Amino acid sequence: MTEKLRIAVIGAGYWGPNLARNFRTSPEWDLVAICDLDRSRAEALAESVGGVRVVTDVAELLASDDIDAVAIATPARTHHGIARAALAAGKHVMVEKPLADTGERGRDMVDAAAGKGIVLMADHTYCYTPAVLKIRELIATGELGEILFIDSVRINLGLIQPDVDVFWDLAPHDLSIIDFILPGGLRPTTVSAHGADPLGAGKSCVGYLVMPLENGAIAHVHVNWLSPTKIRQMVIGGTKRTLVWDDLNPQQRLSVYDRGVDLGLQVLDGADRKAATVSYRLGDTWSPALPEREALGLMAAEFAESIRQNRAPRTDGEAGLRVLSVLEAASESLAAAGAATAVERSRELTGILA
Amino acid sequence: MTEKLRIAVIGAGYWGPNLARNFRTSPEWDLVAICDLDRSRAEALAESVGGVRVVTDVAELLASDDIDAVAIATPARTHHGIARAALAAGKHVMVEKPLADTGERGRDMVDAAAGKGIVLMADHTYCYTPAVLKIRELIATGELGEILFIDSVRINLGLIQPDVDVFWDLAPHDLSIIDFILPGGLRPTTVSAHGADPLGAGKSCVGYLVMPLENGAIAHVHVNWLSPTKIRQMVIGGTKRTLVWDDLNPQQRLSVYDRGVDLGLQVLDGADRKAATVSYRLGDTWSPALPEREALGLMAAEFAESIRQNRAPRTDGEAGLRVLSVLEAASESLAAAGAATAVERSRELTGILA
Amino acid sequence: MTEKLRIAVIGAGYWGPNLARNFRTSPEWDLVAICDLDRSRAEALAESVGGVRVVTDVAELLASDDIDAVAIATPARTHHGIARAALAAGKHVMVEKPLADTGERGRDMVDAAAGKGIVLMADHTYCYTPAVLKIRELIATGELGEILFIDSVRINLGLIQPDVDVFWDLAPHDLSIIDFILPGGLRPTTVSAHGADPLGAGKSCVGYLVMPLENGAIAHVHVNWLSPTKIRQMVIGGTKRTLVWDDLNPQQRLSVYDRGVDLGLQVLDGADRKAATVSYRLGDTWSPALPEREALGLMAAEFAESIRQNRAPRTDGEAGLRVLSVLEAASESLAAAGAATAVERSRELTGILA
Amino acid sequence: MTEKLRIAVIGAGYWGPNLARNFRTSPEWDLVAICDLDRSRAEALAESVGGVRVVTDVAELLASDDIDAVAIATPARTHHGIARAALAAGKHVMVEKPLADTGERGRDMVDAAAGKGIVLMADHTYCYTPAVLKIRELIATGELGEILFIDSVRINLGLIQPDVDVFWDLAPHDLSIIDFILPGGLRPTTVSAHGADPLGAGKSCVGYLVMPLENGAIAHVHVNWLSPTKIRQMVIGGTKRTLVWDDLNPQQRLSVYDRGVDLGLQVLDGADRKAATVSYRLGDTWSPALPEREALGLMAAEFAESIRQNRAPRTDGEAGLRVLSVLEAASESLAAAGAATAVERSRELTGILA
Repeated sequence: MTEKLRIAVIGAGYWGPNLARNFRTSPEWDLVAICDLDRSRAEALAESVGGVRVVTDVAELLASDDIDAVAIATPARTHHGIARAALAAGKHVMVEKPLADTGERGRDMVDAAAGKGIVLMADHTYCYTPAVLKIRELIATGELGEILFIDSVRINLGLIQPDVDVFWDLAPHDLSIIDFILPGGLRPTTVSAHGADPLGAGKSCVGYLVMPLENGAIAHVHVNWLSPTKIRQMVIGGTKRTLVWDDLNPQQRLSVYDRGVDLGLQVLDGADRKAATVSYRLGDTWSPALPEREALGLMAAEFAESIRQNRAPRTDGEAGLRVLSVLEAASESLAAAGAATAVERSRELTGILA
Repeated sequence: MTEKLRIAVIGAGYWGPNLARNFRTSPEWDLVAICDLDRSRAEALAESVGGVRVVTDVAELLASDDIDAVAIATPARTHHGIARAALAAGKHVMVEKPLADTGERGRDMVDAAAGKGIVLMADHTYCYTPAVLKIRELIATGELGEILFIDSVRINLGLIQPDVDVFWDLAPHDLSIIDFILPGGLRPTTVSAHGADPLGAGKSCVGYLVMPLENGAIAHVHVNWLSPTKIRQMVIGGTKRTLVWDDLNPQQRLSVYDRGVDLGLQVLDGADRKAATVSYRLGDTWSPALPEREALGLMAAEFAESIRQNRAPRTDGEAGLRVLSVLEAASESLAAAGAATAVERSRELTGILA
Repeated sequence: MTEKLRIAVIGAGYWGPNLARNFRTSPEWDLVAICDLDRSRAEALAESVGGVRVVTDVAELLASDDIDAVAIATPARTHHGIARAALAAGKHVMVEKPLADTGERGRDMVDAAAGKGIVLMADHTYCYTPAVLKIRELIATGELGEILFIDSVRINLGLIQPDVDVFWDLAPHDLSIIDFILPGGLRPTTVSAHGADPLGAGKSCVGYLVMPLENGAIAHVHVNWLSPTKIRQMVIGGTKRTLVWDDLNPQQRLSVYDRGVDLGLQVLDGADRKAATVSYRLGDTWSPALPEREALGLMAAEFAESIRQNRAPRTDGEAGLRVLSVLEAASESLAAAGAATAVERSRELTGILA
Repeated sequence: MTEKLRIAVIGAGYWGPNLARNFRTSPEWDLVAICDLDRSRAEALAESVGGVRVVTDVAELLASDDIDAVAIATPARTHHGIARAALAAGKHVMVEKPLADTGERGRDMVDAAAGKGIVLMADHTYCYTPAVLKIRELIATGELGEILFIDSVRINLGLIQPDVDVFWDLAPHDLSIIDFILPGGLRPTTVSAHGADPLGAGKSCVGYLVMPLENGAIAHVHVNWLSPTKIRQMVIGGTKRTLVWDDLNPQQRLSVYDRGVDLGLQVLDGADRKAATVSYRLGDTWSPALPEREALGLMAAEFAESIRQNRAPRTDGEAGLRVLSVLEAASESLAAAGAATAVERSRELTGILA
């Protein structure tokens, strides 16, 4: 086997420990350091993963020769600064979602990585779950036909975050998944966002996103911190079949319905009236078996492989940027009473990493 | 017992038979006639309910002395004409949802009835189900506290209607229910509607409605003709408790969660920064027993009682009008790319039937 | 089309009305009379199905020339007497479950019918539901492989019957279904029955039946009148696949799991020790679409067809007898503290209707 | 705080690691050693819990002065020998279920511990889950009334065990739970066991246990290794309420139904006929909130507390013995075609630990 790649995890808060534990057990990676401003927090994490090096200064960390890559799990507003420094130091970078706190900074990170041939990967963990990988495959192979609608619900009694609203907290999951499973990625022209703050928390705690897709299709996301009943469900309607992903039903996460509406058009009374002829298919339902695999392990493997093969990872910086662009437009729409707001993506279309 | 009231059902299509069968078995009503332009259809229905009179001409029907009231179950565009004629003939009127095909015509019907002291009732059947009656009661008695959000989902593989889109077909159910359970009725200032017609049916088959409510609350409705999985669920979040209504779970239709988020505000660093202090309640869940009652029977009884007591029925013309106003604004919003559109209700506020 | 057959329904209590309504709307049958000792009950039923003839005396009914068949829905203890009279009068007979109140009387009915070439059909309605027809097909075509176990649960808050215990009330459903889906019918050598009467109702309200099947397989039935949660579920394990029928889940009544245990045997350390080598299959789950069909309609059609074709119906008297034999042995076992009790079926094996 | 107690875990196979991790994090315990015949297995476990001492010889371990107690997680046939040696060395003992491989050996262990005032605890982990603790409380406070029936189902695609059948593998869970929640413990006079080995594995893979309880009540357990659908459900019917525990539904594990059958008896026609008068209650359903607590942590705490207070633990050796007695009688019943078999418990009734 080739030599292992060496990585440091920056940020020992909520998500960093998951990354650290994961890189530690990955056959492709050596976890060599934990970096956090709070030394005691860093030490506790370092100890729990077998006693790796502890660093409190990012610059010092990045100056190390024994580090090939960093995984950044710090607050979103610090992503740009840390990632730019890491890229400048020639380190490959994985960034927790969202990629950055503004689209402009995210674009700058992507450009910087592209210019240096360094891998910039978005930590879109859900995309590496067996369920989402299977959904992507079913769409790619045409099992569902053309996509008609995507409806995603992610509601639960959630922690009200100090810095972000429910859109920036939860919707990155839905958006990164939709981006991953759509063959062309998530590229809506506009987004409309509707939110509510009924408790006076100072930010939206209930949120809805609407995104028109190609060919008249639509994507909708419902995120909610205030629901005592937990739902994580995505319905993906296609011209051939419809898929329902119920992430809270481990016995049947995916159901593929060979059921739907077929539409024909019939000309009536000469040319100017036509009637839709509708027929229904009521076929079988099918629930594919899913392998038992850890998403984080697959993500670590993909990061390593993309570095070795010098290629864009499956969830690259551009993917992170597409998610970010939607979030940014959503915030604008929210401030404009839900008006349909253009999603900025001019330069993305010319990106080098298709 | 007082003498029975006498009623005729106009329209023997999809919904008329349900009304006819129901009025026939109601202890308060005598079903005396079926009226439909299509004589054979009217006859078939008349025969199945024990052989009542068949009429094909509305004018002839309304000229009858032995009829106190009519129930109109014809296409929406004909509601205004038939109802106006019935009101002019002094008959009490129940109208299938939606009340009319435009808000203006609906308003005209309401005014006409009010002017003559005649009962005009909206056939909002769902409002008379045990589940909805219980929800209304729980809100009225303060069990849920202040309403924070209402999220309603009504999706299924549905018949694509020739004349109406999915909003006008399905959302009247959700809107009439929300109107019924909110103490002040459904009076949003604006509505935003987003729809999709991915099959090219010439109208929205997937639809979302957003309505800001008082005090920062929000109501959202998802209607969908293209989903192979059937969901009829409403989540109603309150400051004290949250209710989930799953209409497809007969063993536990209503769940009341004594669970939620409590929010306080804490002043930090002097006056200009404050932090939300959040606490969670994780209490019991409770599922009230619901009586086994037929909604249509209760609705028929309410119609009779409101006539005898010369009062507005629980689902009166104003309720129908409020639903209609939202639908009309939704259509406008849809044409304006989902822009928040004002809901017309100027004169309603001065209506005589609060 | 051939002429319709003419039928009378005997018994206007709980089940008779379902039969009456059904034969009335069947294209193969003319419902010509309702017979019940209680004239007013018979009249009410007769009127509700369009005003057919009312008879209170069975002998008078059977003397009629305009009747080809009777459907008997009277208490079980009267089945034998009425059926024998009907057979003597040359009428084809359908009998509500259980076929009779003792195996001996049931055998006598079967023999009487066989001797005269008259059709004797057991009203095993469940066998004509789309779900059970599909299960039978899946077993017959080998989709499930050899049957390993059948576990059936039928529990609910039920009416405590005056004359019968929970076994005789509910288990005929499970037993007739198992009889129908097993290629060779239900022919256990013994049955063990365990019951409980914790309320002191004078009969078992909770019951369990165990029946060893061929090749080491087992069938088990749980019936219960005292459960506030309703379950109607059957798990059928096969060597190739396992099927779960959840009759209360209309969205997915049948699930076929391509999942199971494969067993090999391996000789260890010479001949005298061997180890089971076990491997698991974790394949897809599949839920076949089921047509929307009324079981009673299919049953009526089968009755008519078996008469016209002069053949045994799918649920013939022998099937009724097999169910009866198990019930009778179960009662014996119950009286013997659950001891395995032989199921009487000596003569059945030589029956003319295989 | 008082000084910590010191414990060693014997057996580093399947269950030992769970015990080890747990005692390590318990505030009441110091984990000081891991003992296993297989040194490498012991070392791997010792390392993963922070590098405690490794011993391969039980006698050597028990000779240590720095050990107050041992937790035995070895194969059942070795429990007696190890436990007796530990008791002889004055160590408190916790034993994985089942307590021993025969009732006689279990009794000997219980007597040995009682004679020396040493704590012998059965590792009935499930009894310390929040759900089971709540069920016990609901029964003890009379919320359910008198118990009418207990029906427990524990089925899944399971590992076919080399040494034990499905009864000895899975039923100890159900039996120990039933023993724990019944105020007087599980003391059936007889047990009937029915099993099937349809794959020819040499032991029962599907099993049913029937146990008559006091006052005409009944307990039934269904265990199954061959079911592709996983069910862990217990229904406990009481005279006042009925409880359903669905362990696979984290959103609503416990449901308490205020629903049931009330029975009266009415004398008819003089003294010799009486009729049951039945009435139904259809009240609310209630799902108590359960604290998030680790069962193993509570069990470790109970072990420590019982040692310090010199009292029997909640799941003491007698409880383990009651479970064992039922399993042993079940094996006898199985060999006797399911005949009701007396459960040996003569001396238990005079046991010192009521």
